[in-house]
Amino acid sequence: MSSKLLAEFFGTFWLVLGGCGSAVLAAGVADVGIGWLGVAFAFGLTVLTMAFAVGHISGGHFNPAVSLGLMIAGRFEGKDLLPYWVAQVIGAIAAATVLYVIVSGAPDFAGVGSFASNGYGSASPGGYSLMSALVIEIVLTAFFLFIILGATSSGAPAGFAPIAIGLALTLIHLISIPVTNTSVNPARSTGVALFADSPALAQLWMFWVAPLIGGAIGGLVWKLVSTED
Amino acid sequence: MSSKLLAEFFGTFWLVLGGCGSAVLAAGVADVGIGWLGVAFAFGLTVLTMAFAVGHISGGHFNPAVSLGLMIAGRFEGKDLLPYWVAQVIGAIAAATVLYVIVSGAPDFAGVGSFASNGYGSASPGGYSLMSALVIEIVLTAFFLFIILGATSSGAPAGFAPIAIGLALTLIHLISIPVTNTSVNPARSTGVALFADSPALAQLWMFWVAPLIGGAIGGLVWKLVSTED
Amino acid sequence: MSSKLLAEFFGTFWLVLGGCGSAVLAAGVADVGIGWLGVAFAFGLTVLTMAFAVGHISGGHFNPAVSLGLMIAGRFEGKDLLPYWVAQVIGAIAAATVLYVIVSGAPDFAGVGSFASNGYGSASPGGYSLMSALVIEIVLTAFFLFIILGATSSGAPAGFAPIAIGLALTLIHLISIPVTNTSVNPARSTGVALFADSPALAQLWMFWVAPLIGGAIGGLVWKLVSTED
Amino acid sequence: MSSKLLAEFFGTFWLVLGGCGSAVLAAGVADVGIGWLGVAFAFGLTVLTMAFAVGHISGGHFNPAVSLGLMIAGRFEGKDLLPYWVAQVIGAIAAATVLYVIVSGAPDFAGVGSFASNGYGSASPGGYSLMSALVIEIVLTAFFLFIILGATSSGAPAGFAPIAIGLALTLIHLISIPVTNTSVNPARSTGVALFADSPALAQLWMFWVAPLIGGAIGGLVWKLVSTED
Repeated sequence: MSSKLLAEFFGTFWLVLGGCGSAVLAAGVADVGIGWLGVAFAFGLTVLTMAFAVGHISGGHFNPAVSLGLMIAGRFEGKDLLPYWVAQVIGAIAAATVLYVIVSGAPDFAGVGSFASNGYGSASPGGYSLMSALVIEIVLTAFFLFIILGATSSGAPAGFAPIAIGLALTLIHLISIPVTNTSVNPARSTGVALFADSPALAQLWMFWVAPLIGGAIGGLVWKLVSTED
Repeated sequence: MSSKLLAEFFGTFWLVLGGCGSAVLAAGVADVGIGWLGVAFAFGLTVLTMAFAVGHISGGHFNPAVSLGLMIAGRFEGKDLLPYWVAQVIGAIAAATVLYVIVSGAPDFAGVGSFASNGYGSASPGGYSLMSALVIEIVLTAFFLFIILGATSSGAPAGFAPIAIGLALTLIHLISIPVTNTSVNPARSTGVALFADSPALAQLWMFWVAPLIGGAIGGLVWKLVSTED
Repeated sequence: MSSKLLAEFFGTFWLVLGGCGSAVLAAGVADVGIGWLGVAFAFGLTVLTMAFAVGHISGGHFNPAVSLGLMIAGRFEGKDLLPYWVAQVIGAIAAATVLYVIVSGAPDFAGVGSFASNGYGSASPGGYSLMSALVIEIVLTAFFLFIILGATSSGAPAGFAPIAIGLALTLIHLISIPVTNTSVNPARSTGVALFADSPALAQLWMFWVAPLIGGAIGGLVWKLVSTED
Repeated sequence: MSSKLLAEFFGTFWLVLGGCGSAVLAAGVADVGIGWLGVAFAFGLTVLTMAFAVGHISGGHFNPAVSLGLMIAGRFEGKDLLPYWVAQVIGAIAAATVLYVIVSGAPDFAGVGSFASNGYGSASPGGYSLMSALVIEIVLTAFFLFIILGATSSGAPAGFAPIAIGLALTLIHLISIPVTNTSVNPARSTGVALFADSPALAQLWMFWVAPLIGGAIGGLVWKLVSTED
């Protein structure tokens, strides 16, 4: 496997282990738990840290919707799209597997529950409708790509993009955890859906469709706004 | 519409969707909700991320009081003021509309309540008086402009301004959410006031007057302190 | 007044308004309050933002103990020490005055209470002894100066010092709010002690003595470790 | 003692005083306590701040597992490994001693309890098994080294590594405090284990073995992914 695909594998592994792991292990503990604010920082910091570590190797996507949006904006070659998607999904599944092993060592372990999976309707943390879920996932993924493209454009200050992009993902979680538990990333959704005791697998289509549509829109809108050649 | 105005439109859209959206959707949820600390980070991160993404296109104001203060400090041309204000207000209203659609998909939806709008007196989160509200909005907007002007001045380290400015907005929210729910931005106040079931529309004058006065003062004070030519 | 002294005045004003203001207004509100974590970020972000804004003008001390430590390390001229101290203390008192005006507009206003002042013994948030208070204030101020001197030394990456220094102050608050409500800054302690309904004024000597000793130690220890000429 | 070893001594002192100190003093206080989220930021900010301050002197390891992983990746000379380990462990013990003095001044002091020490089984905050503890400590230390090596590699943007590395440690704590109270650092574990009223000393072997294995793996995996010569 090439360095690029290994980087995408480890980056997406880290995103799922850190983001979903903090949610499953630490969010809901009484009194000292980290809550959704902690989970939002955890997801964002996985991307901030890995984008600094391997951004110069693979571009630091860690997310099929990001790869698609970058391709549509002309920043990523179409022939690499599928290999990236495969590396990202395998990384996410591997991380969910390791997380499962860790969680199963809890003294009161009786199944993983929703396992930080994404959902709408009865599987939404706040019970939000499919329509709310579609709108928020599309809009947030579009803005995510817009920020990624802007922060890595030639006019933006060099070197800061991992901060902008990682903290954009934190912000996205601060808004949307109540609605869908926040995906904007089909690989992340897939990894944990395979283990969840919830409707996550049956609803997984939505967390491929909406982020990919949003990512594509973000790539197109950026081209509209950009002043680059 | 020019690239500059589109950038201001999307930036202000993001500020309202992220800041007000996190407040409406995620702040008050029991146990795991993000609280005012999460909302403060959300507002700040909207500006941090968009200033990295489009700061090199439009200057990254996303706020009529910022545009005014920059004009008074001689950093922004007066002929662009009104178009910027229009783009900012339309962006804020568009974001509030999208947020309304998302919120209306909640299972227990029965109106948006205060919808993260700004207020004083009975509409202040902590019941603070009009005088407290005026003082805090003027002072905080003045310091916001002072920091924006300082962090983007020729003597400051290049490239870091979006971090300084975004986290200044986070800090401003940490101080003043209890008093006015924090405006320092007339566009942000206008966008959600149009939807709020609260006195927000009747009090909206205050959240134009105080931030604009504060922004103007900040621009003038900076010229006093600055050692630039 | 020179640009340098105006910068120190506004910077220390901002530190007290933001740090003490967030503590007084927003920390203890039920359910959504920002808690000590929010206060810790607020203090740190006042310094991060102002160091980016005016660090190139005055050096961005905003703290008598910092000015002393920098002088001892040979980075600040002794003849400027007293003027800096005066500007810092006046800035802190001015900010406390503005904060008093805002707080007095609360619907249930009946005095400012401890007004985010510093204390030991019965005036310590956790009831910690004078000995605990002395040790923690000296040690933390020493490390604060050590970090300031290291992060602004010629070997450190340029431009990042405001991030390191601001977040060092956040960290210092995360450790020591329970013990002394965190000073490490005699100006900050003085500003609010003048208004507090607490033993703060009688204990103020301690929050000059300990931070100044700590600052001096930090300056000396840095010279021991530094590999600069 | 050389500048390098003094830098490692003070850096590890700061890590234990700040990280364990915030946990012992401020995490569990009712209503306004900083919780595990605050502790996670405290640990990360100790490394962020000290890496900016002395990273250019010693490399900024502050952790025996980091020194080992860097040596395995060819970035650190083997002859310096033992002196670094000694300086780190002495720094951690010194910090724990100072923390003990501060804590013993609490009004209700009756022993330090677990003193923020690390543990598994009955000594795990959430009661997680030895297997869970081993897996999470090895995996997280491996990723920590991977990020350190990537963020300091020649391809990564210069100067940002302290941000990436410090916030990686914050992220690691957001995931794993419930499982082991988070070590990934044998020096940190040793410092507080000497004082803890808990099984920490009997379990200390685990918090040397797992982080060192993880650090070694991280160094090897980075060499696999890296595109540097």
